[in-house]
Amino acid sequence: MQSLQQKASEYSGVDTNDALSIDDTNLFEKLGLQTFIDLSTNFYTRVYDDEEEWFRSIFANSKKEDAIQNQYEFFVQRMGGPSLFSQRRGHPALIARHKPFPVTHQAAARWLHHMQQALDTTPDIDPDSKTKMMNFFRHTAYFLVAGDELKTKHQQVTCSCKHHGTKKPSEESS
Amino acid sequence: MQSLQQKASEYSGVDTNDALSIDDTNLFEKLGLQTFIDLSTNFYTRVYDDEEEWFRSIFANSKKEDAIQNQYEFFVQRMGGPSLFSQRRGHPALIARHKPFPVTHQAAARWLHHMQQALDTTPDIDPDSKTKMMNFFRHTAYFLVAGDELKTKHQQVTCSCKHHGTKKPSEESS
Repeated sequence: MQSLQQKASEYSGVDTNDALSIDDTNLFEKLGLQTFIDLSTNFYTRVYDDEEEWFRSIFANSKKEDAIQNQYEFFVQRMGGPSLFSQRRGHPALIARHKPFPVTHQAAARWLHHMQQALDTTPDIDPDSKTKMMNFFRHTAYFLVAGDELKTKHQQVTCSCKHHGTKKPSEESS
Repeated sequence: MQSLQQKASEYSGVDTNDALSIDDTNLFEKLGLQTFIDLSTNFYTRVYDDEEEWFRSIFANSKKEDAIQNQYEFFVQRMGGPSLFSQRRGHPALIARHKPFPVTHQAAARWLHHMQQALDTTPDIDPDSKTKMMNFFRHTAYFLVAGDELKTKHQQVTCSCKHHGTKKPSEESS
């Protein structure tokens, strides 16, 4: 069975090495905190104003300012800065935290569309950093699609009703 | 509803600040790769030889050498070293990757018992690093117990059998 990592590469078309080129430089030191705040603010302003209602509705139960903070704190932590996200919320646990949301191929593509626009219109992000970040985002978005597919698998095999009792979910190769 | 982070602190008795004191120093630079390999080898040698069959059996479907590599690569990455884990397997996604395992309070306590012994018997780990790592491990073990509780909640509300149709799992506040 394919691993999450293999699926992420296959779905996104981004090699693991390219996705992890964010680790070649300390992007937090290069870009600074304010740039990450600006990027996430730009991104979520687009998302919350999205003309596509199906996509906008995924975020309907989250406050925009919380979404912005969760995102830039994770980016800062993952790209060489202080562990802002973990100080406030613990381990990123990306798949588990996205469990309430339908992370489909279509949703990943829409997320990436807005992120590309946000990267292109946020000042002070040089082309090399932009390429590295976009590869990381692409790979991560489809890593989460692969994670979402595990959820569907679990729902199919899990039944705790009195007709069927509780079956043990099959183990995923993650 | 309590967050994962709050539950982790409550269950473990370790404050978030203490759990994250691993970020005050670069422990990878201080201890070196070989110490992390030795620690995980020591730990899993204890786990796979555990006289408690219920605990040993949790690891029965994993190869010992894979368990060792997964663990030390994650520790190295989280404690200031290169992203060894992500290069090979993607995001840590700790809760999702522990989903096949019963991460109960009892299992967390037994895991921590072996880890304390492993820390105490692995050469070249100074007392300060040991305290920082043990606080991190304690907090993380119970973070995963909190994550495991989400799984149980999902099983209770999810039913895809023909008698009940598919209910939407309630959203967790993670």
